[in-house]
Amino acid sequence: MPEQITILGDGAMATVCSILLTAGGHGVTMWGAFEESIERLMQDREQTRLLPGVSVPAAVRLTANDAAALDGTTMVLSAIPTQYMRSVWNRLKPLVPAGVPVVSVAKGIENGTLLRPTQIVADVLGGWTRNPLAALSGPNIAAEIAKYLPATAVAAADDPAIASRVQAAFSTQWFRVYTNNDATGVELAGATKNVIAIAAGILDGLAAGNNAKAALVTRGLVEITRLGEKIGKGQKLADILDKMDSVAEGVPTTKAVAELARRHKVEMPITEAVHSVLFGGKDAIHALTDLMTRDPKPEWEG
Amino acid sequence: MPEQITILGDGAMATVCSILLTAGGHGVTMWGAFEESIERLMQDREQTRLLPGVSVPAAVRLTANDAAALDGTTMVLSAIPTQYMRSVWNRLKPLVPAGVPVVSVAKGIENGTLLRPTQIVADVLGGWTRNPLAALSGPNIAAEIAKYLPATAVAAADDPAIASRVQAAFSTQWFRVYTNNDATGVELAGATKNVIAIAAGILDGLAAGNNAKAALVTRGLVEITRLGEKIGKGQKLADILDKMDSVAEGVPTTKAVAELARRHKVEMPITEAVHSVLFGGKDAIHALTDLMTRDPKPEWEG
Repeated sequence: MPEQITILGDGAMATVCSILLTAGGHGVTMWGAFEESIERLMQDREQTRLLPGVSVPAAVRLTANDAAALDGTTMVLSAIPTQYMRSVWNRLKPLVPAGVPVVSVAKGIENGTLLRPTQIVADVLGGWTRNPLAALSGPNIAAEIAKYLPATAVAAADDPAIASRVQAAFSTQWFRVYTNNDATGVELAGATKNVIAIAAGILDGLAAGNNAKAALVTRGLVEITRLGEKIGKGQKLADILDKMDSVAEGVPTTKAVAELARRHKVEMPITEAVHSVLFGGKDAIHALTDLMTRDPKPEWEG
Repeated sequence: MPEQITILGDGAMATVCSILLTAGGHGVTMWGAFEESIERLMQDREQTRLLPGVSVPAAVRLTANDAAALDGTTMVLSAIPTQYMRSVWNRLKPLVPAGVPVVSVAKGIENGTLLRPTQIVADVLGGWTRNPLAALSGPNIAAEIAKYLPATAVAAADDPAIASRVQAAFSTQWFRVYTNNDATGVELAGATKNVIAIAAGILDGLAAGNNAKAALVTRGLVEITRLGEKIGKGQKLADILDKMDSVAEGVPTTKAVAELARRHKVEMPITEAVHSVLFGGKDAIHALTDLMTRDPKPEWEG
């Protein structure tokens, strides 16, 4: 069944989603917080800076008007970076119809609150019950999706019917969507993999080789899984807020994830190493050497 | 405690292991099945063809004499390609002291029998009880280990004491070894990932992009896990032998894995696609299109 989808955001991911959704035959409205930005898009119909050569489909309605954007919507896609979500959602909250599913494509953890993207929406809207929530996430580069190259993603929601509805909305011949009922795990993986990506960049800088990169991915999966399992097993991210001593303001995901790991007493040695390089003034070579020479361990421990 | 380790094989992986083991202070004998090959290594002390510029350490004793190779050994490392293991082990069987642990680094499944490397050894030696068995495996390129670039691996054995002993033998400052008690899973992963590697090569040939490669790795992990879980849950690889209609002779791992998947009724769409391209004359583009346009699924199904 065709949806009337409102995309919040006018960046690269919003544009790519507008291409997928119009290809799927849905009505699409793309909303931007800033009028200048939307006006430029209306003129060019192209993401000249973020995705040069990629057009916003002619069928996509562009608007900076809050009420017009959400009028008649049957599904809201939140394509806003994590740190800006709260302000956008506070602004639009009164206009979002109850019962309409909200899908987030953000990959991050809100600084200070340590909330995941769908938790931020729930926090602003006043609970999960007002609007069903889902996360859409995949290991994808926006520019490639825009070029119709094959890609996959996962639609995660507590409610399987909502996951299936998101799957149906986004599936195209070149974009394959799977369903998943672990939104917490999907969103944590999306955020923490960015820490591993920083470590990969550091390894490239050190010319450490492909084995080291493979080790990073392997061990990175172990520690991401470890955090996901700990948090999935009852302890909610929000719970740690009560025990926080300091508020992490304006720090990137690495700081938030390292903080999460400590609060949940989850060993995440790679995350700690990246943290110590980024914020502790530690030499990358020493961080790598320290990682390699830790006590021998079973595979599912440190 | 220093070991006296006999390495069976004189190829790239055998050489790299000899470098790791001598660095760890162990006594190392490297055995080759062919006298000419060992004599060339004795002259050059270099793997001129397989690992140009990489020396066999001076401390490594080279021999093509079966009895001399295994005299006084405390650990045997089997660095023989899977399809040649049975003949080598049949030849050396009477000389291998009972009780001495055997470690395999092969990544494959024996054609015809569909046995894993350590199962081949057990089959030849007459059961697991005569010699404790372990598998050492990691996502590594031999040439990089030989250059002292950082890498990791896993030592898998049913007996945790054996896994720890292998871990201790191979660990160096630049090679970090983890223990694991699921030798079946480790060996299956080592073999099946080669199928995914072929698929990755096909995607490169199609210029399908990074998203497609990421999708392949993600979905490849799903189907490898699915096969490992099915076989790990009671059904042994050997059991399927009884039910085999045809003997697969001289076919590569893809054929063996596709066969395993069918016997165990495990859905492995990527493996099937690679199989159909390699053996069914299917066009790669069509195989990819078919993979992308299958019915929508939950993440842990097809």
